[in-house]
Amino acid sequence: MENWINSNRTENKLVLSSRIRLARNIGAVPFPHMLNEEKGKEIVNLVEDAFYKSQIMKDKFTTKYLWESDPASNRVFFDKHLISKNLLDNSSKGAFILDDDETTSIMINEEDHIRIQCITAGFNLEGAYDYSDKIDDLLEQNLNYAFDEKLGYLTACPTNIGTGLRASVMIHLPALSISNKIAGILNAISQVGMTIRGLYGEGSKIYGNIYQISNQISLGLDEREIINNLSGVVNQIINEEVIARDTIFKTYKYNIEDRIYRALGILKSAVLLNSDECLRFLSDVRLGVEMGIIKDVDLIMLNKLLVKTQCLLINDSKLQNSTEEKKSFDRAKMVRETLIKK
Amino acid sequence: MENWINSNRTENKLVLSSRIRLARNIGAVPFPHMLNEEKGKEIVNLVEDAFYKSQIMKDKFTTKYLWESDPASNRVFFDKHLISKNLLDNSSKGAFILDDDETTSIMINEEDHIRIQCITAGFNLEGAYDYSDKIDDLLEQNLNYAFDEKLGYLTACPTNIGTGLRASVMIHLPALSISNKIAGILNAISQVGMTIRGLYGEGSKIYGNIYQISNQISLGLDEREIINNLSGVVNQIINEEVIARDTIFKTYKYNIEDRIYRALGILKSAVLLNSDECLRFLSDVRLGVEMGIIKDVDLIMLNKLLVKTQCLLINDSKLQNSTEEKKSFDRAKMVRETLIKK
Repeated sequence: MENWINSNRTENKLVLSSRIRLARNIGAVPFPHMLNEEKGKEIVNLVEDAFYKSQIMKDKFTTKYLWESDPASNRVFFDKHLISKNLLDNSSKGAFILDDDETTSIMINEEDHIRIQCITAGFNLEGAYDYSDKIDDLLEQNLNYAFDEKLGYLTACPTNIGTGLRASVMIHLPALSISNKIAGILNAISQVGMTIRGLYGEGSKIYGNIYQISNQISLGLDEREIINNLSGVVNQIINEEVIARDTIFKTYKYNIEDRIYRALGILKSAVLLNSDECLRFLSDVRLGVEMGIIKDVDLIMLNKLLVKTQCLLINDSKLQNSTEEKKSFDRAKMVRETLIKK
Repeated sequence: MENWINSNRTENKLVLSSRIRLARNIGAVPFPHMLNEEKGKEIVNLVEDAFYKSQIMKDKFTTKYLWESDPASNRVFFDKHLISKNLLDNSSKGAFILDDDETTSIMINEEDHIRIQCITAGFNLEGAYDYSDKIDDLLEQNLNYAFDEKLGYLTACPTNIGTGLRASVMIHLPALSISNKIAGILNAISQVGMTIRGLYGEGSKIYGNIYQISNQISLGLDEREIINNLSGVVNQIINEEVIARDTIFKTYKYNIEDRIYRALGILKSAVLLNSDECLRFLSDVRLGVEMGIIKDVDLIMLNKLLVKTQCLLINDSKLQNSTEEKKSFDRAKMVRETLIKK
């Protein structure tokens, strides 16, 4: 699998990343929110023992214990989409096993005991599923999963029961946003059992025209069906976006080019940048790169800026307690240096 | 005298140019608006004969006959402040005598038969007056001026009677504009017999924070008194602007720097620029250059852009009849090329 942040493959243009998450629990053990720290840490040990049985896994993966790390570093994991808000909130007993490429992470004591998460660059739900399925098999060999013949995998929240699968893609839809077609699509998606969310999952605002589309239903369908359904919907949305881009470019060529080049000009020169406008300009520049209008900026740069900008954590702890103006100043500096260095 | 457009002298910072205009008429001849084309052209010949008596003047000056030139070229003279709107409107009988440096122009058949105009770079009303006075003496030797012992020089409009003198400076006042102090100053100026106008004189809008401050009264004071009074007022305004700059920089350092650098970033990258926002951004960049924040742009560049931007006449006749979008496109291209070439 390929780390999405470091991917510059042009065929990935609209879809930044594909993500698979499997929710699993250990049988006859209360769900994490019912565990105290001691019991929680026992679960961490249990999962580690099961996971690190083979030398290959020992070489490729490391466990990060959130309670051993400072909040700012943990926040960086979150901003990189390696862990969830829920795990962050459970830092006192939460841990995750991470591979070197930062594409796979196994969260322990999130909402469920185990959350296997694979994120790969571009539109590749199959690849991400195959890999998470292997990890699931490995763990299942050595752990007693909470499983019901009729219901499937049991989970802390009933919406995850069954396959425990959530598949999602992160997709850049500026033209549908500009042409106000996104609301209609949002509506249509929810009708077919999918949801559309912001960059940072459930309840998060939509920033910089980047949307996360995922399956709502995990029960009653098998894993391949869920993935195929989502892929079908995403392909339709990609088509809509491509058509919308064609239309706005034909109708407002200079205005769109102006918007794109100004965004790059401002990102390269601003002294203060708040995160909202920064993400908006990054979206405009991304559109320019995706359309082949801007040639001296690559998608890796934009992915990194997307992550860094959102989180503000340019120098981790240094930025804690700093004023909004200081954050805007540091953000602008970081963006300028990234774009001009190249 | 020094052409203001080509001046990069840092001591001229706030004041772009100083201008002296003397209104004169030939005795016993109706004012220009009462002359038909034939009679008007006779006046042109009369003034030329008086002016070109010496070889020095023949070498240094040329007459431009507006009726021989196309409207677009005539418009360029206007945009460079070499002729007035009134002369432009009187193209069928209007002419002007221009020196090589484009600092002095003697308009014939404007509102008055003769309008001697000297524009020099920076704050130098004395220099401009001395030069226009010499030209006035030369003409007076060979022409019979309309002059009344009590009233002084007679002019078509009574507001110019007396000295026929209008002195003005073109001054950049962004900080007073930003801090909303300009209205108070405008009011104070009119109380002491001065007026403040936009870049292109009477009735013109104020663009890009560039103001023209001039004497209102030409009667009852001698020339030196008028000039001294105006200089005093301008010096006060310069002080106010300097204080306002200090204050906004101390209070909003990053915001002002952000505004300045973004303006430059946008000017260097925009694909469409309308003249209003272009002049606004040019003012921001000029402030940056004047404050020593921006170092890789010089004032000559900004002066040229100021003239070119305002007029839209990038390629003279080519731009006639073009759409607003085309004008914005060409303006943005011209600005980019000027700023990036360097």
